[in-house]
Amino acid sequence: MRPFEVLIASHGPLADGLLAAARMICGEVQGVSTLSLLPEDSPESFAARLRAALAPGRPTLILTDLYGGTPHNVACAVVGREPSELRCVAGVNLGMLIEAMTATEPLDDALVERLVISSREAIVDVSARLAARR
Amino acid sequence: MRPFEVLIASHGPLADGLLAAARMICGEVQGVSTLSLLPEDSPESFAARLRAALAPGRPTLILTDLYGGTPHNVACAVVGREPSELRCVAGVNLGMLIEAMTATEPLDDALVERLVISSREAIVDVSARLAARR
Repeated sequence: MRPFEVLIASHGPLADGLLAAARMICGEVQGVSTLSLLPEDSPESFAARLRAALAPGRPTLILTDLYGGTPHNVACAVVGREPSELRCVAGVNLGMLIEAMTATEPLDDALVERLVISSREAIVDVSARLAARR
Repeated sequence: MRPFEVLIASHGPLADGLLAAARMICGEVQGVSTLSLLPEDSPESFAARLRAALAPGRPTLILTDLYGGTPHNVACAVVGREPSELRCVAGVNLGMLIEAMTATEPLDDALVERLVISSREAIVDVSARLAARR
């Protein structure tokens, strides 16, 4: 049982697309939610929805879609105020989400470092590998 | 004008979510399409749809959601047969897609290497940076 929540924050429907793809692979998983920046959102309205989406007292890993984008910047501002319970990683891809969803250890530096390293390693130029085998 | 096509191949609606998010940031962009693996797809039916989605004679960059997943494996099989025109990168995130969509150079080794490096660097543990500033 994962001892923390996962919240995916994105531009538009990307967060829901990530969660749907992860469920095709892992099945139903509890404690994962999504938050989508809508065209009519302001940073303030998105921040209010983000704070409302957090489970009080539960450690939460926020995965954002793009470093420097509004979902990410708003998440940073929220995380900056509650450092002990919230962590934020930018640049989510499907590998990162699946690794976070299936984690069983506490939300600490070691886990976040592992997520960052493994999701970076999951970005691969496959055509170079295919060419090397020819 | 980008001299190649971009095709995002994913489990379920993730590819469409990525493209919708990228359009919220970049606006409408030509020459980018999506292909979603559906629960009823077989690898063969997905491969047939992937081949049909390729523009004949146009260099195409295929971005897949997960190394080792069905969309990725099928794309590898297709790329392996047409090495000169197709490239495939696994582990797409929003940063990679935006960089690919807005590229203007040819689809060559240098471009793909830049995409891989920049999208890896876009994966950041922000909470560590925030903590370091305190």
